[in-house]
Amino acid sequence: MAEEPASEVQLLKRQKAKLIEILSADADFVLQHADARSLLSPHGYQQVKCCRNPSEKVTDLLDHIIQRGPETARGLLELLKERDLLETFPQLHDFKDLRVETPCSGEQDISRKRRKDPDLQVMVPPKQICSNDRGLVREKQLMSVARHIGKSWREIGRLALGIPSVKLEQIEEDHSIHVERVFAMLRCWRTRQREKATAAHLHSLLSQEDLELPPETNGLSMEPTLHDLSEPLVDHAEGQLFLNEAFKIIVEDVLCKGTDVKQKVCEWKDPDELALLLDLQLRDSGEPQGRLLQRVRDVAKYSVKTTHPHFFNQQYGGVDYHSLAGRFLSEALNTNLFTYEVAPVFVLIETEVLKALRLLVGWTEGDGLFCPGGSSSNMYAMNLARYSFFPQVKRQGLCGLPQLTVFTSKESHYSVQKGAAFLGLGLDNVIVVEVDDGGRMIPEDLEEKIKLSKSQGAVPFLVSCTAGTTVQGAFDPLDSIADVCEKHKLWMHIDAAWGGSVLFSKQHKHLMKGAERANSVSWNPHKMLVAGLQCSVLLLKDTTNLLKQCHGANASYLFQQDKFYDVNLDIGDKSVQCSRKVDCVKFWLMWKAIGSSGLEERVDKAFLHVRYLVAQMKKRDGFLLLREPQFVNVCFWFIPPSLRGKEGSADYEKRLAKVAPIIKERMMKQGTMMVGYQPLGNKVNFFRMTAFSPLISNKDMDFFLNEIERLGKDL
Amino acid sequence: MAEEPASEVQLLKRQKAKLIEILSADADFVLQHADARSLLSPHGYQQVKCCRNPSEKVTDLLDHIIQRGPETARGLLELLKERDLLETFPQLHDFKDLRVETPCSGEQDISRKRRKDPDLQVMVPPKQICSNDRGLVREKQLMSVARHIGKSWREIGRLALGIPSVKLEQIEEDHSIHVERVFAMLRCWRTRQREKATAAHLHSLLSQEDLELPPETNGLSMEPTLHDLSEPLVDHAEGQLFLNEAFKIIVEDVLCKGTDVKQKVCEWKDPDELALLLDLQLRDSGEPQGRLLQRVRDVAKYSVKTTHPHFFNQQYGGVDYHSLAGRFLSEALNTNLFTYEVAPVFVLIETEVLKALRLLVGWTEGDGLFCPGGSSSNMYAMNLARYSFFPQVKRQGLCGLPQLTVFTSKESHYSVQKGAAFLGLGLDNVIVVEVDDGGRMIPEDLEEKIKLSKSQGAVPFLVSCTAGTTVQGAFDPLDSIADVCEKHKLWMHIDAAWGGSVLFSKQHKHLMKGAERANSVSWNPHKMLVAGLQCSVLLLKDTTNLLKQCHGANASYLFQQDKFYDVNLDIGDKSVQCSRKVDCVKFWLMWKAIGSSGLEERVDKAFLHVRYLVAQMKKRDGFLLLREPQFVNVCFWFIPPSLRGKEGSADYEKRLAKVAPIIKERMMKQGTMMVGYQPLGNKVNFFRMTAFSPLISNKDMDFFLNEIERLGKDL
Repeated sequence: MAEEPASEVQLLKRQKAKLIEILSADADFVLQHADARSLLSPHGYQQVKCCRNPSEKVTDLLDHIIQRGPETARGLLELLKERDLLETFPQLHDFKDLRVETPCSGEQDISRKRRKDPDLQVMVPPKQICSNDRGLVREKQLMSVARHIGKSWREIGRLALGIPSVKLEQIEEDHSIHVERVFAMLRCWRTRQREKATAAHLHSLLSQEDLELPPETNGLSMEPTLHDLSEPLVDHAEGQLFLNEAFKIIVEDVLCKGTDVKQKVCEWKDPDELALLLDLQLRDSGEPQGRLLQRVRDVAKYSVKTTHPHFFNQQYGGVDYHSLAGRFLSEALNTNLFTYEVAPVFVLIETEVLKALRLLVGWTEGDGLFCPGGSSSNMYAMNLARYSFFPQVKRQGLCGLPQLTVFTSKESHYSVQKGAAFLGLGLDNVIVVEVDDGGRMIPEDLEEKIKLSKSQGAVPFLVSCTAGTTVQGAFDPLDSIADVCEKHKLWMHIDAAWGGSVLFSKQHKHLMKGAERANSVSWNPHKMLVAGLQCSVLLLKDTTNLLKQCHGANASYLFQQDKFYDVNLDIGDKSVQCSRKVDCVKFWLMWKAIGSSGLEERVDKAFLHVRYLVAQMKKRDGFLLLREPQFVNVCFWFIPPSLRGKEGSADYEKRLAKVAPIIKERMMKQGTMMVGYQPLGNKVNFFRMTAFSPLISNKDMDFFLNEIERLGKDL
Repeated sequence: MAEEPASEVQLLKRQKAKLIEILSADADFVLQHADARSLLSPHGYQQVKCCRNPSEKVTDLLDHIIQRGPETARGLLELLKERDLLETFPQLHDFKDLRVETPCSGEQDISRKRRKDPDLQVMVPPKQICSNDRGLVREKQLMSVARHIGKSWREIGRLALGIPSVKLEQIEEDHSIHVERVFAMLRCWRTRQREKATAAHLHSLLSQEDLELPPETNGLSMEPTLHDLSEPLVDHAEGQLFLNEAFKIIVEDVLCKGTDVKQKVCEWKDPDELALLLDLQLRDSGEPQGRLLQRVRDVAKYSVKTTHPHFFNQQYGGVDYHSLAGRFLSEALNTNLFTYEVAPVFVLIETEVLKALRLLVGWTEGDGLFCPGGSSSNMYAMNLARYSFFPQVKRQGLCGLPQLTVFTSKESHYSVQKGAAFLGLGLDNVIVVEVDDGGRMIPEDLEEKIKLSKSQGAVPFLVSCTAGTTVQGAFDPLDSIADVCEKHKLWMHIDAAWGGSVLFSKQHKHLMKGAERANSVSWNPHKMLVAGLQCSVLLLKDTTNLLKQCHGANASYLFQQDKFYDVNLDIGDKSVQCSRKVDCVKFWLMWKAIGSSGLEERVDKAFLHVRYLVAQMKKRDGFLLLREPQFVNVCFWFIPPSLRGKEGSADYEKRLAKVAPIIKERMMKQGTMMVGYQPLGNKVNFFRMTAFSPLISNKDMDFFLNEIERLGKDL
């Protein structure tokens, strides 16, 4: 009967529904037999293996085989006629439709011959069996070989089969029975060889005369031989299988459990105990995959679940799945954002994201860069400001320049101090400006201090304002500060790492009014927008290529000028980093997913949650707000029952100061939630709660208040 | 009977809701039968198969078939009359409506039926139906509700059902027919509500008197109401499904295709064209999941495959699956390495990894930190050195200090320059020391220049040596330099970002002899060890807590001293960063996986590959080595046929300089491989190839040489 070339494929497709029904009775059995005949690609094998549901597994198996083409389809049809299979799935007996006329009828002869073949008698598979199964060695053959290899199996593995010693140690650890170890080693060889794993090849390797196998010795310290160079060190199939399993653990233990309010936020362990549990030590030998997966589970288990709806400890709680997908993608693509050559997509995406963010600030032109965190962004701004006034600083340094001073508020982020020290300006040259009750910089005090500094012979050059202070969430009055900066010709920088995201909200962007008058803005979308750590930008109004002039070094091995594309796309020289992580694509993907309107919703909802929380606090006893929140930071004392009404007593403040640390310790040890506390100026320890994660609901606000009450009721 | 061409489509469309209800009882069964009849496109089949929820699966199946046209629709209608199907879905027996009739008569039937159906009379499902199906609302009920919701569906969605507007926009985009949109919205509500999706609940939501629905207006700019607060913004099921699909794309497109020598290393596009292809613009509305997945595919497609065995362009090629799993894990756990409180596991792991690396340098004690790249590590070392000699610099800055000078070789990394400029020291104070032919610092010249600098009134404080220069891979003679540093009491720093990994190899660690005499070492395991970008450490011999003294700011809101655990574990104040990424766990997991011996093997094998490559080069015409490699950088010119034997001619150098750029452009545009080139001193453009990825074999070395020959044969 004349059939079309793809008749096996058509046949398999037609009978698929029926086959799924039959083979689902033991999906793994058929999968393993199919893999034994190399009917699957290594990747396909892993994918199919991962299916949990039997019928899904069979479906995927059949689809995969069909997709691979007629030869593989034929292989499966033959497999289904094997005795083992017929015994396991008796319905296959009645399934006449599976017969396809093979192009050459010699196949049957071979099968018959194979059954009689005395290949079990010899150590190595005889050459004549190589014509079967496109020559690929079968499990059965491997097993027969395994039975004839003795104590020198490791040497054979290393010398003849080129298996890395780490792998051999893993095999040894994974299997306790000798023949199983040898069999595993041979299977490992087969996997690594892929289409070259023929019986003939195995035969030739094992019969090498120059093998010079030491008679059953333990040759573990053998030098790598040139032979090794023909194979890469990484086994993709094995590696991808591990990654797949690790991914499942991440989804289950971090993303499912870690966002489930019924689960703990943290599993507190004392450092010594945790160190023991984690078995931190790094050793000479590698470990088997199973143990490594357990390590992934352990890391997940004992890590704080910042994704949890009851993590209120810092400004990076929650999770965004689109961003996370973007993060996995950029991690896998593992490149460096320095040239268009190696990061074409990311250079364009970074440029686009920076442009879109600048537009929100109010700038149609400008420049910018993703930096490793807000502190770095602030430091960059400081260096750019310095360079813009004193370009000679790049070549000559500060030596010989006048004393330069920086102005920032009392409640600004400590990175202004760190930056000034790092850049050689010195902490003493950071002049601290007074704040009002709400923590906002007082422009009048700023101007006075600028004048004072000038009168002392120093040269003020930078005001670093804050939009969203860390503790109180205060927004400095940008417009008034801009007036002062313009008057005194100072660089105006806004540290909007925390508060910048209000620019997405029509309702709340007024908090940043005047931002467009600044020279630079730092903004961390990894905070309120949940883009994932790290995602931090420095935005610049500058259009004179200041970033590159100030930071550039023109390395000739990287930023060649004779490239065949526009070298302005090689943005790496704008940075003082050389390796620079790709932090833009996750944010871009998230933004694409929910749009500016979705990001606006996140911001607006955070404000609503805070409004709700504050309203509830006011209905309860024992919650005392530091002041009405301006942003989404809620600062408050919990006054435990024993201290209520005793505000005048001598040790009141001292006792109140101890409340937050005790409640914090209790919540951590019970793992129910996490929130931060701190003193501020003359105010003793109070809680600072930030509510902005897109995972929270008002139920979580209620839980928060109940939990503080529960933990502090005996204090 | 005369039929309109599309009557099957119309019929199927009309009966879809009913069919979904019936066929959802065994969605996979009907899918497989439909596929057996080739009613789906291969891509459509894959898409439908991925749906987890049975009713969604059937919906997608029907939509797909409807979309394919009348012939396919007819095929399905026939299938539904088959015995197998009728047995599985007995309700199909009573489903006379599946017979194709003229559109108008069918429509009448349905309208007639609808008028009689009591639950179709009202806008909301009557209470009495709530007893069905444990109260969960059925598709049929949703459909009947959908038919009664008009133009104000969006308002109903937002106000009554709490569906985010982004989601509504997606629904609108995904469906063109009004009733389908409303139905999709109701289904979305049901998915989000899970066990609360009862008919009673839906009824009560839709009958709210305070809904105040504007009579069929388009209220897109409505304020979020308090109602919204009861539900989080993120849908975990939907999010995890997306992540799962994205993961599959990453495995397939980045890790399988991206490591396959038969695939391209890069898919070159001009920037303008690529920008168009990527559709970069960020908009107000979000996008449907399918389109976002396509974006993931596009990012993967047009990105350079640094994982590819033929990516020789930079020192971060290849992939390690254990490390990648660790990266996914730390991305998902999304925390900040500043306090033990939020990063207990990572603080301990970072400490352990630093300890193990210090031991390899030869230090049993010391300190260290993971930094965002080698340039940052080098800058840190410079700042620490400065602080160790002049602690007053932290408070007072450089103003008033003498001129400080730094010494580094001509071929050291540009980050020494960048660091000096950034720290306010100035480029002019980086004194460049001569190198020998191999690019190694000449200690005699170092000492001379130190003396000269002193004689000019400057204060030398730091020698930054290099172990593994970027271009030539040279190792400065550390022991001799240590002698000079000791004599002149200078801080000795080693930039071993590239070369540090030789410390894992018994055979090659001699290259770093003398490293233990240094004060600090930077080392990037993301280079030769393939730990993934970024993984960069600064190691210190110091035991006086210099890092914290130099960089600390003691922020009271973060590093509270009244915590209930040892606050020395709050390592964040050692850094000038505040947010600091977790870069240690991936390296730790990889090290655990293959052991120090596995890392040693990577290093040893890289040397062997280079030895092989060089041997092959010498056998061929046209390959001229700059010099014998000391490390795994192979620097060479390719002399094209037309230039061979013309070394003396006038324009030889000029012509040779153009060879590498042209070959580079060709390989990029064809996507076959990537390798870097650069000039160096008076040497015109030559290639620099680095071979160290654990994915390469000697076949890739052969390919490399053949490809250079192929691309340059006509030059």
